Amino acid sequence: MNIMQPVPKAAAKQQHVIDVRDLDKKFIDAVFSRAETLGHMRNDSLKGKSLCWVAESASTRTGMSFKAAITQLGGAHDSLPDPEHSSESKGESFEDTIRVVGTYHDVIVIRSKDAAFPSNAAKLSSVPVINAGNGPDQHPTQALLDAFTVKQKLGTLEGLKIALVGDLSRGRAPRSLALLFAKHYPNNEFVGVGPEELWMDTDVVEYLKEQKVRYSEVKRLTDVIGEVDVVYMTRLQKEHPRKGLFGVEYPQLTLELAKKLDRHALIMHPLPANRERELPYSIDGLPQAIYLKDQLRAGLAVRKAILQELLLDK
Amino acid sequence: MNIMQPVPKAAAKQQHVIDVRDLDKKFIDAVFSRAETLGHMRNDSLKGKSLCWVAESASTRTGMSFKAAITQLGGAHDSLPDPEHSSESKGESFEDTIRVVGTYHDVIVIRSKDAAFPSNAAKLSSVPVINAGNGPDQHPTQALLDAFTVKQKLGTLEGLKIALVGDLSRGRAPRSLALLFAKHYPNNEFVGVGPEELWMDTDVVEYLKEQKVRYSEVKRLTDVIGEVDVVYMTRLQKEHPRKGLFGVEYPQLTLELAKKLDRHALIMHPLPANRERELPYSIDGLPQAIYLKDQLRAGLAVRKAILQELLLDK
Amino acid sequence: MNIMQPVPKAAAKQQHVIDVRDLDKKFIDAVFSRAETLGHMRNDSLKGKSLCWVAESASTRTGMSFKAAITQLGGAHDSLPDPEHSSESKGESFEDTIRVVGTYHDVIVIRSKDAAFPSNAAKLSSVPVINAGNGPDQHPTQALLDAFTVKQKLGTLEGLKIALVGDLSRGRAPRSLALLFAKHYPNNEFVGVGPEELWMDTDVVEYLKEQKVRYSEVKRLTDVIGEVDVVYMTRLQKEHPRKGLFGVEYPQLTLELAKKLDRHALIMHPLPANRERELPYSIDGLPQAIYLKDQLRAGLAVRKAILQELLLDK
Repeated sequence: MNIMQPVPKAAAKQQHVIDVRDLDKKFIDAVFSRAETLGHMRNDSLKGKSLCWVAESASTRTGMSFKAAITQLGGAHDSLPDPEHSSESKGESFEDTIRVVGTYHDVIVIRSKDAAFPSNAAKLSSVPVINAGNGPDQHPTQALLDAFTVKQKLGTLEGLKIALVGDLSRGRAPRSLALLFAKHYPNNEFVGVGPEELWMDTDVVEYLKEQKVRYSEVKRLTDVIGEVDVVYMTRLQKEHPRKGLFGVEYPQLTLELAKKLDRHALIMHPLPANRERELPYSIDGLPQAIYLKDQLRAGLAVRKAILQELLLDK
Repeated sequence: MNIMQPVPKAAAKQQHVIDVRDLDKKFIDAVFSRAETLGHMRNDSLKGKSLCWVAESASTRTGMSFKAAITQLGGAHDSLPDPEHSSESKGESFEDTIRVVGTYHDVIVIRSKDAAFPSNAAKLSSVPVINAGNGPDQHPTQALLDAFTVKQKLGTLEGLKIALVGDLSRGRAPRSLALLFAKHYPNNEFVGVGPEELWMDTDVVEYLKEQKVRYSEVKRLTDVIGEVDVVYMTRLQKEHPRKGLFGVEYPQLTLELAKKLDRHALIMHPLPANRERELPYSIDGLPQAIYLKDQLRAGLAVRKAILQELLLDK
Repeated sequence: MNIMQPVPKAAAKQQHVIDVRDLDKKFIDAVFSRAETLGHMRNDSLKGKSLCWVAESASTRTGMSFKAAITQLGGAHDSLPDPEHSSESKGESFEDTIRVVGTYHDVIVIRSKDAAFPSNAAKLSSVPVINAGNGPDQHPTQALLDAFTVKQKLGTLEGLKIALVGDLSRGRAPRSLALLFAKHYPNNEFVGVGPEELWMDTDVVEYLKEQKVRYSEVKRLTDVIGEVDVVYMTRLQKEHPRKGLFGVEYPQLTLELAKKLDRHALIMHPLPANRERELPYSIDGLPQAIYLKDQLRAGLAVRKAILQELLLDK
C-alpha cells in the first residue's frame, strides 16, 4: 500500500464514458499513463468518493472489477440492482432515479439492456456516468483495457493486424474495440472471423470504412491465424437472442490452430469464455494466452485509472 | 474532504429513532445543527463504525441514502435483505436475528412491512435502532429531513401553513411530518388535501387535536394553494392495498395550480414520485420546486447528522 | 478505535482454511493469540485488502460475520451471490470464476452446497480460500471459534467432556468441532446425543477412533447432562433432506435439564437455533448459556484473527 505518493490531477475534461468514439484522445492517453503505474497498487486517492453500480442485467465480472477498483483507491461503492424493477415498483421514473443516485454518489456505472440508457443518464446526471455495457452496443472500458493490454504487450497501437473472432454482430466487446481503434488508432488492419450470420453489423463496418481502416471478413480462423498480432476471441451472445443461428459452426481456437500463431502474438478474450466452445483449456498454458493474466489484470488497472481521471480534481 | 475538523460530541441521550413523538427535542436540535455544517462533507468521524441495513421490503432510496451517509463519514455498511426469509429458512427467530446483527454492527436501520418491527427490535438491541419506514406507520428520518429542509428554506418552523396532499391515510411520510410538528413545533396549521377515502387516519387526527394543532381537510388543491407555505405532495401507496379506491380523483400539482403558489412557498415530495399522477415534470423548473434539490440533499445531511448523534461518544 | 498499536506479522505459513485436519497447529495458536486481543477492536491493519464472499447457498450470519471482521480491520468486501447461476448464465466455468475473483480480491470466503467446492477453489486460487461451510461436510472457522470460546471460558482444551447434541450426521458444526479436537486436542472425551438416525457418520467416528479419542453415543440428554463440561446443541438440518426422519424425537435442552448442568459448564450453539425445538428461550438467562454472548462475540474476534493471519505479510 502506498498512500503517500502524490497522485497527478486529471488531465482531460472528459465527463462521461459512453461511446468510444466520443472519448477525448487526451483522456485515453492520461488513462493509459495512470494505468501503467496503478496496477494492483492500493492508495487513498479516491478516499471519500463513492461509486454506484446500476445493473439492469447480470454482470459478475465488470461490476466486481469497478467495485474493486474504487475500493483499492480508498473509495466506497453501493449497488442499485435491477433499477427498472426497483423504480417501477413504486412508479418512479428513470429520470428521477438517476438524479437521486447522482445526489448520493460521485460516479454512476451502468450495465444496461437498453442501448440508450447510459447516454440518457449522462444527459440527466450531475456526476460522471460510465457505460459498462449497454446491451449489444458498446463496452467502452473493455475496449480501453484491451487496447491498454495490447500497448503494454506489443509496445504499440499502430501497424497491427487484429483478428476479431466469433459473435461480432452482437458482441459489444469486439464492436467497441474496432470502433476505438478506428477513431483513435486507425493505422491498423482488422479481420472479422466467424460464420457469416455473425459478421460485424453495418454500422461498425461503415464507420471503419469512413475512418479508412482496412477491414475484411473470413469464415475460418485457419485462413488468418498465421498473420495476426492479436486474435481476439469472443463468446456466442446467447442472451441477445436471434433466429437462424441453429447449427452455425462457431470458431474455436484449438491448440493446433493456436500453435500456428506468431510467437509475439496475443490471444485475448473479454471473458466470460465458453471453454467448450471457443476457448479450450488446452491453450491456457501457451505464452500467447493472456486472457487470464495481463488482460484480466489490466481491467483493474484501467478502471482505477478511469475513476481517477473522472473523479480527481482537475 | 475535511478530515481534520473537530467533530462535536453527541448532545443528547437518544438511543433509538422509532417514533417522532418519542424523540428528545435536544436530539432534534443537535441533528439540525450538525446537518447545517455536514452537507456533502466527507470525513472520518465514524471511521470503524458500521451500519446494517435490514429491509423487509424494497427501498432503493432510503437504504442508499443511509449507506451513503455512513460512507461519507468514513464508516461501512452491510445489508440483511429480506430478514424474514433469511432467518425463517433456517428457523431462526426475529429476536435472535436482531441480537446477532447488533453484535456485528454499531447501528441497525430497519425498513419493515410490520409496524411493530422497529420498536420490538429496539427493545432487544444493544445498539441503536433506526426506523426507516415501518409499513404505513412512520418514517421518522424522512420527517426530520423534511422539517430541516423547511427550516433551511423558510428560516422558521413556526407560524406556517402546510398542505399535506394525496394519500394521507397510508403515507408514512405525511403522517410522520404531521406528528413531528404536532409534538415539537405545534404552532403551525396543517391542511389535508385529497379524496375523502385517503384522508388522515384518526390516530393522527386525534393526536393533532390533543396537541392543539389546527387541522382541516379539503378535497381539492385549488382551495388552498394560494395560502400555504409548503405544499407537500405524496404518491398513491399502492403497495399497501385497500378496497374502494377505484376511480378516486388523485390530486395533481399542475403547472397552472403551482403558479398560484406564493413566491416563497415550497413544493416538497418525499419521493419516489409518480410523474404521471401527482407531480408532473412541467413544474420541475419552478423556483418553489425543491424535491430534487434542497430536500433530496437534506436527506444525506440529516442522516449523517443522525448517525453522528447516535454513534459518537457522548 | 486503535490504529496505532503495532500488529504482529503472520506466524504460520497457512495458505487456505479448508479442512480442520489440515490446519497447522502454529496457525491455530497464532489465531487464538490474536483473537484474545482483537475482540471488538477496530483498526487499519487490513486497510487496502478486500474479501470476496462467494455464496452458493444462503448464509446471513457467517457472511455478515466475515464482512464485519474485515471491515473492523479497515478492509473492504464484495459478494458473488449464487456463483453457479451467475457464471452458468453466461456459460463461464467454475475455474475461470475463481481465477477472476482472485484477481480482484485478497481472500475468497466460500459458502457452498458442494463439499468439494472450497478445496477445488484452493487449488486454482492465487489468494487464500476460506471454507465457510461446504454442504454438510465442515465449517472450520466455526470449529475454531467454538474451541476458542471453550479455551477462553474454561481455560483449557484438554481433559474435557463434550456432548454434541442433535443432528450430528448432517451438522457441519459438530462434525468440524469433533475433527478439530481429534486432530489438535485429542485428550478429551466426546459423547454424541440424539436419535440414532442422526448419529455421527462413520467418516468422523473412524477418524476419532484413529486419533484415539473416547467417543460414545446416547439417545437422551438426561443420560449425560450432569457429567459434561460443554453441551453443544445443534439444529435439525432440514436443508439437507433425508428420508426416514419423520417422527424422530429431537433432543431439547429444557430448563429442567439445563439446571442439572455443572455450574462451570457451557451451553453452546452455532446458531441459528430453533427456539421451539432444541433451544428454548427459557434457558437464555442461565449463566452457562453463552451462545448469544461469548460464543457469538468470539466469531468476530476469531474471524478477524484468521484474516490477519492469512493476509498480513509474513
